[in-house]
Amino acid sequence: MTDTVALIAEFTTRARAAARMLATLSTATKAQALRAAAEALRGAEPVILAANAVDMTKAAEAGLSGAMLDRLQLDAGRVAAMADGVAAVAGLADPVGAVIDETTRPNGLVLRRVRVPIGVLGIIYESRPNVTADAAALGVMAGNAVILRGGSEAIESNRAIHAAMVSGLVAGGVPVDAAQWVPVTDRAAVGAMLAADGSNGTGAIDLIVPRGGKGLVARVQSEARVPVLAHLDGINHVYVDGSADPAMAAAIVIDAKLRRTGVCGSMETLLIDRAFPDPHALIDRLVAAGCEVRVGPGLSDALPQATEADWDTEYLDAIASAALVDGVAGAIAHIARHGSHHTDAIVAADEAVATRFLGQVDSAIVLWNASTQFADGGEFGLGAEIGIATGRLHARGPVALEGLTTYKWVGLGTGQVRG
Amino acid sequence: MTDTVALIAEFTTRARAAARMLATLSTATKAQALRAAAEALRGAEPVILAANAVDMTKAAEAGLSGAMLDRLQLDAGRVAAMADGVAAVAGLADPVGAVIDETTRPNGLVLRRVRVPIGVLGIIYESRPNVTADAAALGVMAGNAVILRGGSEAIESNRAIHAAMVSGLVAGGVPVDAAQWVPVTDRAAVGAMLAADGSNGTGAIDLIVPRGGKGLVARVQSEARVPVLAHLDGINHVYVDGSADPAMAAAIVIDAKLRRTGVCGSMETLLIDRAFPDPHALIDRLVAAGCEVRVGPGLSDALPQATEADWDTEYLDAIASAALVDGVAGAIAHIARHGSHHTDAIVAADEAVATRFLGQVDSAIVLWNASTQFADGGEFGLGAEIGIATGRLHARGPVALEGLTTYKWVGLGTGQVRG
Repeated sequence: MTDTVALIAEFTTRARAAARMLATLSTATKAQALRAAAEALRGAEPVILAANAVDMTKAAEAGLSGAMLDRLQLDAGRVAAMADGVAAVAGLADPVGAVIDETTRPNGLVLRRVRVPIGVLGIIYESRPNVTADAAALGVMAGNAVILRGGSEAIESNRAIHAAMVSGLVAGGVPVDAAQWVPVTDRAAVGAMLAADGSNGTGAIDLIVPRGGKGLVARVQSEARVPVLAHLDGINHVYVDGSADPAMAAAIVIDAKLRRTGVCGSMETLLIDRAFPDPHALIDRLVAAGCEVRVGPGLSDALPQATEADWDTEYLDAIASAALVDGVAGAIAHIARHGSHHTDAIVAADEAVATRFLGQVDSAIVLWNASTQFADGGEFGLGAEIGIATGRLHARGPVALEGLTTYKWVGLGTGQVRG
Repeated sequence: MTDTVALIAEFTTRARAAARMLATLSTATKAQALRAAAEALRGAEPVILAANAVDMTKAAEAGLSGAMLDRLQLDAGRVAAMADGVAAVAGLADPVGAVIDETTRPNGLVLRRVRVPIGVLGIIYESRPNVTADAAALGVMAGNAVILRGGSEAIESNRAIHAAMVSGLVAGGVPVDAAQWVPVTDRAAVGAMLAADGSNGTGAIDLIVPRGGKGLVARVQSEARVPVLAHLDGINHVYVDGSADPAMAAAIVIDAKLRRTGVCGSMETLLIDRAFPDPHALIDRLVAAGCEVRVGPGLSDALPQATEADWDTEYLDAIASAALVDGVAGAIAHIARHGSHHTDAIVAADEAVATRFLGQVDSAIVLWNASTQFADGGEFGLGAEIGIATGRLHARGPVALEGLTTYKWVGLGTGQVRG
């Protein structure tokens, strides 16, 4: 066993013990601890900013890009927002202990499915130091122990944020190992976390949540022996049906693509029904709003022509592909072939057509007459999200506190035997 | 790509296409198809028994054990039971399409979580040919395509059962690829199914369900790149608290251990509170009922003494280990160390003690004053079960139709943009 593997085994063993305690804490205790952690973050602002300055200096020396430096940088406003986020999680409804359903068997045995924490979460993230606070807050509020492994470029910022969080959490009555932070930048630590499926008998990580760019998510998904909650791509489609109101279609398409182009819920491909009255006018509106549109056959010779690769590309930029399709069946077939099971929308007046699209498009989120940019835990009313999942099991779409829980069966008897 | 990998890729691609159709079928169509499949099984009884005779002859020549031969053997009663089982699944409540919850956002967007099939299930099983019918019925009723890979010793039986099932399903309006059976006994086929996580772009298996002995489950869990729904061990405990009624305790302990010793819900370890009035009398009752009891320190010198390995052993036989513990805390600690997260029970009159046990024992099923032998989908009122899962995510304990579904978010708008 290498030192790093031994280190992670130690973390998971401690986390498992903390998880057993966390599972029994009251909502009030968890909420109080998170409010104390928020206060501790506010109080530690000078320390956090000083630590961040060390990271920023090193990052600038190392020649990190402007975008990366922006993600890494903290200021008073960002620290306050981080603290506000932690305090907001304290106000969310606690899913733990909720009775999902209950039946009484003919023999009198009462069977309940009761929500319980998942156990131990591994959070693997990159340069944004706020994840240290956000992910710890969501994990702990749902009764889970979290093991945080941030990017090496943010090590001093993360150390300071973690120290403040833990001081608040402990003051509020949460075990010290509820939110552990891995202080080594060795890449093998990530590998050890991804392999921590409990088969070595030292406890395990129950769920890995990667927070970062596509490279990180791809590595995590390909290496992990532990279940992963994530999405790799957001190749999202808006299908404009022949029955769509053209003004509504233009408003939704422009918002879906351009409101923010760098978010996972942005539209990448516009599918237009051949029966839609004026596809060119719709595309012109999108171009006029500042989008490069790469078109498939039958649209415009004056615009860039899409290649086969365009249909599988997540631009995350003011670029979209656009294709004519044969009605809703054509749209469903295109999405089945090129989609990434994230968020797809239909604009249509015809309810039967919309119902077919919503039923047959196999994505975590399907929308009728609304922008794909609503793919967000806050917009869904979940209060916060740990991420958006495109896998098929456990939790899909925006995942918040409930998605960080599972259930157990609790049977209440009066001496029943099966006999 | 080897031939076997190519073969499984072909199966998964067809299954994915079938799954898209299955997801849209009405409950009535699925139920009608399953009833037709049950009829087809009844009609094919002579063919199935003839095929089974071929398997039995080969198995006897190969020197299979009596227990294996019994699992393999079919007769008219077993074929009828298989058909009845398929018909019974047709009568279960269909989870697909159920609205789990619905909210209306301040902007008017209606958000529903709607149950949908998981997609493609891989069933990997051993000598019992009835799994071919049972697993296909449950999978299809929940709207999933299934890929069935049975044991080589049952190949002719499985071929005949599968042919009958498919003829009925197709007559009832279900796609022919809804239930595919892998006709090769090559072990590499199992490896290819376990690796079918979709990364090769040819479709994938969404969930593997192993049905068989510990060797099979262990192989599947250690090799799979696809999520697995299973339990490896059922090291189940009954804790008898000091507050327990001695007569109830004896009845539950004897039932939990001895009703059937070979099932995964049987008790393997008896934990007795030091405050319980007469632990020796309780153990004597178990011994008198025909159980070998291996005891820990402080119990009886006249009985076999448990070694450390006994606490981690699933006997699946008329053998149990027994230990004295320091109250409910001692029981919880013992189970945390040695349990397998399957089914654990407490016998107690003290509600506070029971509540603590039910809350802190981290198993899929926890029971108060009831036998662990209730760990069964039928006993839980689920009608049937595909298996019992001890993992933490998605579905735990007995898994039936609902556990073979997931959900999607469906948003109904009137032109909302995020703006």
